[in-house]
Amino acid sequence: MSIFDKYAAFLERYQMAEMMPKNPLGMRFDEILTPTRARVDGREIILAGTNNYLGLTFDEDAKAAAAEAIAHHGTGTTGSRMANGSYAEHQDLEAEIADWLGMKSCIVFTTGYQTNLAAIGTLAGRDDLILIDADSHASIYDACRMSDAKMVRFKHNRPDDLDQKLERLLPETKGSALVVVEGLYSMFGDIAPLGEFAAVCEKHGAYFFVDEAHSVGVYGEEGRGVADMQGVLDKVDFFSGTFSKSLASVGGFCTSRHAEFDRIRSIMRPYTFTASASPATIASTRVTLAKLREGEGLRQNLWARAEQLHAGLSEMGFTLCAEPSPIVAVRRSSDLETVMGWQQLMQAGVYVNLAVPPATPKGACLLRLSLSAAHTEDDIDAILGAFAQLAEQGAVAVAAE
Amino acid sequence: MSIFDKYAAFLERYQMAEMMPKNPLGMRFDEILTPTRARVDGREIILAGTNNYLGLTFDEDAKAAAAEAIAHHGTGTTGSRMANGSYAEHQDLEAEIADWLGMKSCIVFTTGYQTNLAAIGTLAGRDDLILIDADSHASIYDACRMSDAKMVRFKHNRPDDLDQKLERLLPETKGSALVVVEGLYSMFGDIAPLGEFAAVCEKHGAYFFVDEAHSVGVYGEEGRGVADMQGVLDKVDFFSGTFSKSLASVGGFCTSRHAEFDRIRSIMRPYTFTASASPATIASTRVTLAKLREGEGLRQNLWARAEQLHAGLSEMGFTLCAEPSPIVAVRRSSDLETVMGWQQLMQAGVYVNLAVPPATPKGACLLRLSLSAAHTEDDIDAILGAFAQLAEQGAVAVAAE
Repeated sequence: MSIFDKYAAFLERYQMAEMMPKNPLGMRFDEILTPTRARVDGREIILAGTNNYLGLTFDEDAKAAAAEAIAHHGTGTTGSRMANGSYAEHQDLEAEIADWLGMKSCIVFTTGYQTNLAAIGTLAGRDDLILIDADSHASIYDACRMSDAKMVRFKHNRPDDLDQKLERLLPETKGSALVVVEGLYSMFGDIAPLGEFAAVCEKHGAYFFVDEAHSVGVYGEEGRGVADMQGVLDKVDFFSGTFSKSLASVGGFCTSRHAEFDRIRSIMRPYTFTASASPATIASTRVTLAKLREGEGLRQNLWARAEQLHAGLSEMGFTLCAEPSPIVAVRRSSDLETVMGWQQLMQAGVYVNLAVPPATPKGACLLRLSLSAAHTEDDIDAILGAFAQLAEQGAVAVAAE
Repeated sequence: MSIFDKYAAFLERYQMAEMMPKNPLGMRFDEILTPTRARVDGREIILAGTNNYLGLTFDEDAKAAAAEAIAHHGTGTTGSRMANGSYAEHQDLEAEIADWLGMKSCIVFTTGYQTNLAAIGTLAGRDDLILIDADSHASIYDACRMSDAKMVRFKHNRPDDLDQKLERLLPETKGSALVVVEGLYSMFGDIAPLGEFAAVCEKHGAYFFVDEAHSVGVYGEEGRGVADMQGVLDKVDFFSGTFSKSLASVGGFCTSRHAEFDRIRSIMRPYTFTASASPATIASTRVTLAKLREGEGLRQNLWARAEQLHAGLSEMGFTLCAEPSPIVAVRRSSDLETVMGWQQLMQAGVYVNLAVPPATPKGACLLRLSLSAAHTEDDIDAILGAFAQLAEQGAVAVAAE
């Protein structure tokens, strides 16, 4: 017997993917040319499936800061910040993030995934209760697995369901309750009613953790996210985010209005046992954070393009999963139809994300588009043109679950 | 009640650390000047506690490649390789690592911690059995926690104990057995008898997983690690390593002699839900990998310095935890004595790692030194001089557990 036998069904599916004109499970860009263009098989295609919401990956100032950091501080660091010491710039970035969000403490992590794993997994201990939205990101689910706390899911975006579950479970909870939600959900592109969630947390004395990985830079004043836009940023106990989306690098952060948070970093295993982010990553992130704070112009264009795309797809009759946002998810009726649609879009020169179970909530099959402030009106017209070809070939509207 | 109450004892200890002349839990370098020098509080100190074994973090060719990657490919990537596509260079690095180690498949990860989390956690499923060395790194323990498999520890570096446990547990195991050991253990600096472990695995039909995070670049031909030095690289099923040590950047890899390994990447959650490493990181790693393969000169100097340090400390009577290696762990009798020793070494201008429980195996209290090929004979003399001051002040030898 082979250790791979348990994945036989998956491996068979992978073999099918490999036989397609373009393998969606092994998508390769020969070169990324700009935030919105790549070269694939000798052709230039439009990128409509990156998380580069502000289009800052090629920002000249960020590139210059990264290059300067390499010249002065080298390509790597000394190792883990707990075991091998912190660079001044990592600490400076933490202070800048805390200042931006009006928080008391901040920890920078080497990946976004490890941010939630470390923060949630450590905050909630054996006697505690974690309540998470059913549509939560994998990093939140995995954090619960790492934690000794009891985990309970409540219905997606339903503060009333959270309220009932807290009502029922708090009396039997010896420790604290930690409620985890996201600002903007990455698959459907829908936002959370954070004000209502904050009120439920306040009523029950639960701690409120918000992951704004996809919403930072896009919503709120100075791009502070959905909680800021809804006027409840000061009700958030813990706020996590990522550097690999609007901030155009790699890594993550968690910031808190509790000063103690900063001090428990050394008992966070995914933090303690990971090398710190490279000097280049930290340097470019400090530049893009400043640009994100001042980025009203970028945000205006991003939103104009999001509305243009949403309106165009709606007009053609496609079933969209949420109101306009930089994430526009087009529902398809089966994974085969989704894969075929993805191939046709690639053929037409448009790269979108193929999102099928188990990576999606509720078994949804999606062609997921994410936009960038670097997209132009013409880019969106070209994307819509590719979808028009798709629409000519068959069913467009799909009944939601 | 506060969510931080459960960490009250730790927070009190942290407050004590903050009152020391230098806070060992919040060590900050004002600037890293070279692979062996940093500026701290206006003074230049010797670094003897980084994992920069080959001293390549400031390599001019690696820096140039990283800067060029930023100029051409930007500061970040499109996102997760599964969700948002792969860059050609990430795939090229995977092919280069597989070629170097004579393996059939390779996956590159964004951190070393996530490498073990993803590879081990996915390879071993519900019906499988994971057997790990008791002194395993936190990432291996955490991978077992993420996996649905049953986990059993065997005694550190004891193939006979592994043999007995396999004998007893295999009959009741429905799936496969995965044995996980390291090449060079990061705390004590001792190496594993990989040949004997490989024989036990072969006898029982168990899969053999070796983590060579600390040994790559240091042991074996072309720096292939301990398994290569011991002539059993071809018996290794899965081989993991990191970019943040000899390879002087951030990230990790797992390579395998099984072609299927490559294809299950998309069901590895820590891989699928993490943004890929930055173009600069991948570019510099490709350069340092080539230098590591050709690095006999670097390795010779590293080993000469390791032996110089080991002999000098032994002569003074310090209790060392293993034979000479680039990791030299000096045993102390209590955590207080260790912290005081660390402070005195800092005072003398030498930075080493403070390693106390729970970060160490068997409750050991250690002043851990790690060397670099960039250290000179004079550097080691200076480090020995600082330890001589320590030796003048009190007990030197410590009884091992």
